[in-house]
Amino acid sequence: MRPVVFLSDFGLDDAFVGTCHAVLKRIAPGLDVIDLTHGIAPQQVLEGALALHDAAPYLPADAIVLAVVDPGVGSKRRAIAVRGADRRFYIGPDNGLLLLAAERAGPLFDVRELTDPRYRLDPAAATFHGRDVFAPAAAHLAAGVALAELGPSLDPSLLVRVEVPVPVVAPGLLRAVVVAVDRYGNLQLAAGVGDLVAAGFAPGTQVVVEPGGVAPTPPDAAGAAGAAGAANAPGPAQATVCRTFADVDPGALLVHEDSSGRLAVAVAGGSAARHLGLAAGAAVVLARPRG
Amino acid sequence: MRPVVFLSDFGLDDAFVGTCHAVLKRIAPGLDVIDLTHGIAPQQVLEGALALHDAAPYLPADAIVLAVVDPGVGSKRRAIAVRGADRRFYIGPDNGLLLLAAERAGPLFDVRELTDPRYRLDPAAATFHGRDVFAPAAAHLAAGVALAELGPSLDPSLLVRVEVPVPVVAPGLLRAVVVAVDRYGNLQLAAGVGDLVAAGFAPGTQVVVEPGGVAPTPPDAAGAAGAAGAANAPGPAQATVCRTFADVDPGALLVHEDSSGRLAVAVAGGSAARHLGLAAGAAVVLARPRG
Amino acid sequence: MRPVVFLSDFGLDDAFVGTCHAVLKRIAPGLDVIDLTHGIAPQQVLEGALALHDAAPYLPADAIVLAVVDPGVGSKRRAIAVRGADRRFYIGPDNGLLLLAAERAGPLFDVRELTDPRYRLDPAAATFHGRDVFAPAAAHLAAGVALAELGPSLDPSLLVRVEVPVPVVAPGLLRAVVVAVDRYGNLQLAAGVGDLVAAGFAPGTQVVVEPGGVAPTPPDAAGAAGAAGAANAPGPAQATVCRTFADVDPGALLVHEDSSGRLAVAVAGGSAARHLGLAAGAAVVLARPRG
Repeated sequence: MRPVVFLSDFGLDDAFVGTCHAVLKRIAPGLDVIDLTHGIAPQQVLEGALALHDAAPYLPADAIVLAVVDPGVGSKRRAIAVRGADRRFYIGPDNGLLLLAAERAGPLFDVRELTDPRYRLDPAAATFHGRDVFAPAAAHLAAGVALAELGPSLDPSLLVRVEVPVPVVAPGLLRAVVVAVDRYGNLQLAAGVGDLVAAGFAPGTQVVVEPGGVAPTPPDAAGAAGAAGAANAPGPAQATVCRTFADVDPGALLVHEDSSGRLAVAVAGGSAARHLGLAAGAAVVLARPRG
Repeated sequence: MRPVVFLSDFGLDDAFVGTCHAVLKRIAPGLDVIDLTHGIAPQQVLEGALALHDAAPYLPADAIVLAVVDPGVGSKRRAIAVRGADRRFYIGPDNGLLLLAAERAGPLFDVRELTDPRYRLDPAAATFHGRDVFAPAAAHLAAGVALAELGPSLDPSLLVRVEVPVPVVAPGLLRAVVVAVDRYGNLQLAAGVGDLVAAGFAPGTQVVVEPGGVAPTPPDAAGAAGAAGAANAPGPAQATVCRTFADVDPGALLVHEDSSGRLAVAVAGGSAARHLGLAAGAAVVLARPRG
Repeated sequence: MRPVVFLSDFGLDDAFVGTCHAVLKRIAPGLDVIDLTHGIAPQQVLEGALALHDAAPYLPADAIVLAVVDPGVGSKRRAIAVRGADRRFYIGPDNGLLLLAAERAGPLFDVRELTDPRYRLDPAAATFHGRDVFAPAAAHLAAGVALAELGPSLDPSLLVRVEVPVPVVAPGLLRAVVVAVDRYGNLQLAAGVGDLVAAGFAPGTQVVVEPGGVAPTPPDAAGAAGAAGAANAPGPAQATVCRTFADVDPGALLVHEDSSGRLAVAVAGGSAARHLGLAAGAAVVLARPRG
């Protein structure tokens, strides 16, 4: 039986995730479920889409991906299951969550709308399609139901897509948005090593890191970081462009390619979010020091 | 092998849950464990009992339910395993945690006290019966030991029961206790749609939501919500009785039936706990707006 | 297939743990993974080493232990796999994390450095050896690769070890370091029942508990406890030496042997960390009351 990889913004404080696991295994006993993460900030579709995209190379080749970050639950947004060029299935809301990952290997192979009542719980609650629509679809696929059984075909070009913030790059300047803050306080940017090169920041370069003029909008889950942001007045700080934490002194700032292949601003042995007073959604400018 | 469904107030910051998993699989290799939730607020038996009750319809039909919210550990409270009319096994402390779920399908079929030393770890620590008494019992049942082997029979009428707060309903008024606050800040009430109907609040009705005269007693785990409650002065607010978040504008309050079948007070795209400054244990009054 | 027991300081807010699970099961489909805990405070190697040590008696006898608390990732610290006298495998960084557990049953049987490129992901990120080096090694061992295949043999005497703080004991006095604070706010000490006996504190004794002159250094993850510590002025308090919570009145302090076999300072139905304003890293003095 193909394993299910499960990502959501449900958190682990409530029984949402556990109830979905129960539904999956009630339908498909013995199913193997891999919890990718349930710590996506509430209703942050872009953060979830990037997390799925970044994890894709590491997932079992035959994974059924179940992803639920679903601010539009109960509205008219569609529930979908797609088959990617990577031959994996991706199941979730039609809000862009799935497509960065599902289209990584090429155009979608097949898209279905989850309408067949045989493969949903009845009645489906207006606020918990993870339990009543998406998990049942994933379990039935794992148990051998064909994708085409789940509902009618959809035109891939009609699917909703997320917009990934584009970095601004000029010689000596790189401006990018913080897309996620991890438990260590590392700030993950919507930018890559190519952008560093384009800005002329070679390994070993010193750069000034400063808030980029967009007010941080801390999501609900980032309460602590948000509070820290309010307390510390964000200001410019000096960082070293390098490979890893061990390349700078403890407590020093660095800019490096993180394990997902994105640029990150970090503090060796500390928290860059706290140091700079920044949260997800903020913009950061990396610039050549003056004088 | 029957799967084990595991609920507790252990949280996931420590090794309590993981050690129980290890014990389960040491006794019953290959056992499938479904973590329903470990985020029950510390020692809140009622919250755990309601979470189990609400999840029951979604659990595998042959589940062995292992539940540990156990403020009386080390005292004379009994350790029990029961077989419900639903043919599932329920294992945990005799403090009412199990019975709302176990009696959902009808009177208990068999009740045993967990006294047989063959099916406990020796010595059993005074403070961790989850590891030393309950998990071993669940694993041995999964491995094929008969319920009657675990200890002597008990009279079901002697078991401890929890008291579920009863809502106060009158025309134009509904008062209920907040039994849980989820990660999104939704306030789950000890009341149902029938109570709304009895109060005369039809879908589309506007109601005033106000703190109900019981001081909030935030449990330990609800530190953030508690702090928010202290900061915001709780006051009355207007809400719409409706079906789901999408029925109101972003940021607006609503009262709806949540996915567990209980009434909830919510904010579309926001946190009702923060908006109203309320935590679990508080009472809420829904009333017809004056003049 | 042998089960993998996984401990880390990755937390569950990000996809670090889930990505390691994916890698494990991509290499070894059907592998059973037991998450011991991922709540070790960031980069606190000693806390992780003690948690592994304490859990060892409860793990499946054939477990493959995968442990990652790795402040030196990307530096020259070695990646190792060892076979203990208990015949289990232990995999992780060479920083002392593994050895308290792995040497519990006697001297190490075999030590290997994880250098063979066939059993690592390529390229290995500079900051995530959990995903790229340690998880692959664990999965390959589970899938039947021999330990000796993973890399060259190392002399066990060259491995890095952690220093466990030693309690100071005199008649009527016991000073020990807080090594962990659990979700209930219990303060776990680097001391055991033997130290209590040596200090002359028999069951039933009243002792004064006071901060021990070492400034608390709350780790990143202990933000809430740290804040509480700042708010409450830590001061002396009276506690009872006893067996368990039920032996004292609700709200009273106690000193007892916890479920891991260490001494703990606790509050019945409450939080000793909050009551005393202490966090991990602080020292505590237990003394005979004066006059």
